Amino acid sequence: MARRYGNISFLTDYGTVDEFVGVVHAVIADLAPHARVIDLTHQIPAHDVRAGALALVRAVQYLPSGVVLAVVDPGVGTARKAIAVEVAGGEAVFVGPDNGLLAPAIAMCGGGERAVLLTNPGFQLPAPGVTFAGRDVFAPAAAHLCNGVDLAELGETVDPGVLLPGIVPLPRPEAGSIVCEILWVDRFGNCQLNVGPEDVDGWGDRVRLRYADTTRAATVSATYGTIGGGIGLVVDSYGMLSVCLDRRSAADELGLAVGDAVTLARLDGDHGDEGTAGDGGISVRLGPPTRR
Amino acid sequence: MARRYGNISFLTDYGTVDEFVGVVHAVIADLAPHARVIDLTHQIPAHDVRAGALALVRAVQYLPSGVVLAVVDPGVGTARKAIAVEVAGGEAVFVGPDNGLLAPAIAMCGGGERAVLLTNPGFQLPAPGVTFAGRDVFAPAAAHLCNGVDLAELGETVDPGVLLPGIVPLPRPEAGSIVCEILWVDRFGNCQLNVGPEDVDGWGDRVRLRYADTTRAATVSATYGTIGGGIGLVVDSYGMLSVCLDRRSAADELGLAVGDAVTLARLDGDHGDEGTAGDGGISVRLGPPTRR
Amino acid sequence: MARRYGNISFLTDYGTVDEFVGVVHAVIADLAPHARVIDLTHQIPAHDVRAGALALVRAVQYLPSGVVLAVVDPGVGTARKAIAVEVAGGEAVFVGPDNGLLAPAIAMCGGGERAVLLTNPGFQLPAPGVTFAGRDVFAPAAAHLCNGVDLAELGETVDPGVLLPGIVPLPRPEAGSIVCEILWVDRFGNCQLNVGPEDVDGWGDRVRLRYADTTRAATVSATYGTIGGGIGLVVDSYGMLSVCLDRRSAADELGLAVGDAVTLARLDGDHGDEGTAGDGGISVRLGPPTRR
Repeated sequence: MARRYGNISFLTDYGTVDEFVGVVHAVIADLAPHARVIDLTHQIPAHDVRAGALALVRAVQYLPSGVVLAVVDPGVGTARKAIAVEVAGGEAVFVGPDNGLLAPAIAMCGGGERAVLLTNPGFQLPAPGVTFAGRDVFAPAAAHLCNGVDLAELGETVDPGVLLPGIVPLPRPEAGSIVCEILWVDRFGNCQLNVGPEDVDGWGDRVRLRYADTTRAATVSATYGTIGGGIGLVVDSYGMLSVCLDRRSAADELGLAVGDAVTLARLDGDHGDEGTAGDGGISVRLGPPTRR
Repeated sequence: MARRYGNISFLTDYGTVDEFVGVVHAVIADLAPHARVIDLTHQIPAHDVRAGALALVRAVQYLPSGVVLAVVDPGVGTARKAIAVEVAGGEAVFVGPDNGLLAPAIAMCGGGERAVLLTNPGFQLPAPGVTFAGRDVFAPAAAHLCNGVDLAELGETVDPGVLLPGIVPLPRPEAGSIVCEILWVDRFGNCQLNVGPEDVDGWGDRVRLRYADTTRAATVSATYGTIGGGIGLVVDSYGMLSVCLDRRSAADELGLAVGDAVTLARLDGDHGDEGTAGDGGISVRLGPPTRR
Repeated sequence: MARRYGNISFLTDYGTVDEFVGVVHAVIADLAPHARVIDLTHQIPAHDVRAGALALVRAVQYLPSGVVLAVVDPGVGTARKAIAVEVAGGEAVFVGPDNGLLAPAIAMCGGGERAVLLTNPGFQLPAPGVTFAGRDVFAPAAAHLCNGVDLAELGETVDPGVLLPGIVPLPRPEAGSIVCEILWVDRFGNCQLNVGPEDVDGWGDRVRLRYADTTRAATVSATYGTIGGGIGLVVDSYGMLSVCLDRRSAADELGLAVGDAVTLARLDGDHGDEGTAGDGGISVRLGPPTRR
């Protein structure tokens, strides 16, 4: 008997307008009544695997030990594989489609150690159509894992190394500046970039910001409340720089969206010391490496 | 002492912008701390009893044994009755307004076996106004049922046969074609029709689709991913045909909405064998009859 | 050892589009696995402390004993204080920012009896940025309180009397009429005023309603269903008068919004007996004083 789990952390693009999320909860309550389901979010934009992967990788270090059930699955029912991947000596098992959604979070946990394709129909619900794998394939797998079913029973064992990787865009140093990308626009309109404060270390507390055809100065600020009336570059709760306004939406007012390029440069024009930006050592970090 | 229940499946049109849903959870947590509440959805369009009834009947076969609490209740506080209806030898009790919301789901469970009007004030919260029966009447009833209070204690016993029926639109065969109705548009823009794949059995994998002033060919497809660039008719997760695009919203792009008529016809114009469509035997089915 | 709590009632302006709410649930599940989290709502308009305070004060009388965790916190990371306030002999502890959000609900519970600033880093999560106090400061405090940690251990004890008060607008009697304010527009478009039915006692069942440049007659009605085609003044579920239409949105159709002034006057023009309206005794009440 494998270990039992008490928690299922759950993320999808199902929205909350329909009963999809509720039905998955119902299936889990029926199969594994002891399991607690933690809804991370279900409002990943429809079919947006990258947005789902980024939300998951932001959240993962805060999740309790257990199953992580994530479904953003435009290829449902096609040749894309349904997988379960164990990490960290069994501390967690990721369940979802093999389309890159899970990969960054799995990497954050040290990489997959065991993996299976969810091919065993004995651990699935019978279904009249194939379009709701969350209900019929993924949720039952998560529930059975909580009940102590070993990963290997759920289907064919595969090498975790062959699973589809996730793509996280890297910032690009360029002539004393850094070409960044907006990874995430949150509910408040804050725009998370793919660089951290160490990437602008030594640049001072004013930085040049370029996006679309606009150039503006931004103030590096520890909090929203100290930005004042202009644009702030705030170290957000995941340790990344984000473009923010105080109590207003930077995305709305500046016209920024996920995927947009934003270039950061020294405001004083002094490119003599580019710090970490010029040495090619920029790498994306999503959250601190350890929590406790 | 009647049986105790551990689950309350909960569906409303309350939305999630206000604290209505949370307060119902609070009332239940206070009265029946052991009960788990499963939120099916709270975003049924305001006052849309039919949409609520259809969401409930889609979900019902997946719900764990227990209480089903559903509230879409434009007539709250008027002469409409508040009811609790027991089904399947006590496997489940439906609680909500007697306005057709519960009827299709109750029918799916084999029909009501016992019913009461929720007239006993001893199992209600005192309330300054009558507009929030979910909090003051229905949630307490659900919680007390979970605590083992017998249905008959909640109020006046009535004949389940006199409760208001729900209305589910039937498709209509017409000169070798089937006039369908869109029952549901989901978050992804897929448009569920009130026919299943057996209704177009023998028609081949291309079907003529007429809606508004438009005629298009649709491809019968098992998955969204195999539709290609055109319109698909996909067997959805409830066994119904739905009008779909691959990774795009059929509702948005084709201009379809709930209640719209969609006519399916053979593409080849050969009406010699109309299969089940021509023999008047079409009936609506919502999900497979049995789950396990 | 202080008392342990089993419930955390949770309200924010985080929205549900991002993973913020889910991550707070995850942190609590990790630190206090036995605690049940009740989501009141997370769709308080961004940064709208007053709307959050009003939602909390409406809900508070229905909450089970335990921790109340509320975060609408535009000043996160600045000099605003993070607090925990015990009420009612320890029946509940409020946790959140000291910006007026908690004050009306605390007052409703009889006032704060003990209070601390959440200054002890031993009961917080390490964080790369200060912008997510819900995750790093408030949720851990709530979880540790559930585990039996005494309030005094969480930080510096302060006088509950020095905490920032909340502001609830009072109605104003004026020449035989009452100038009210719309406190809340709910999902259905009902517009709650800051007066109760006793404030128009003796005025009859037709009242003059003035808003913007419009004067209309409204019918005092116990339910939405008995309003008919005109405007209703319905005693809502919190005992307040609300401007309503039957099955339609009063806010949308009449152009009303939170904060708008609405003047109520006798329709017959007879101002000889102004009842409670003219004697200066009008005070805001939010819900009945006692629940059971």
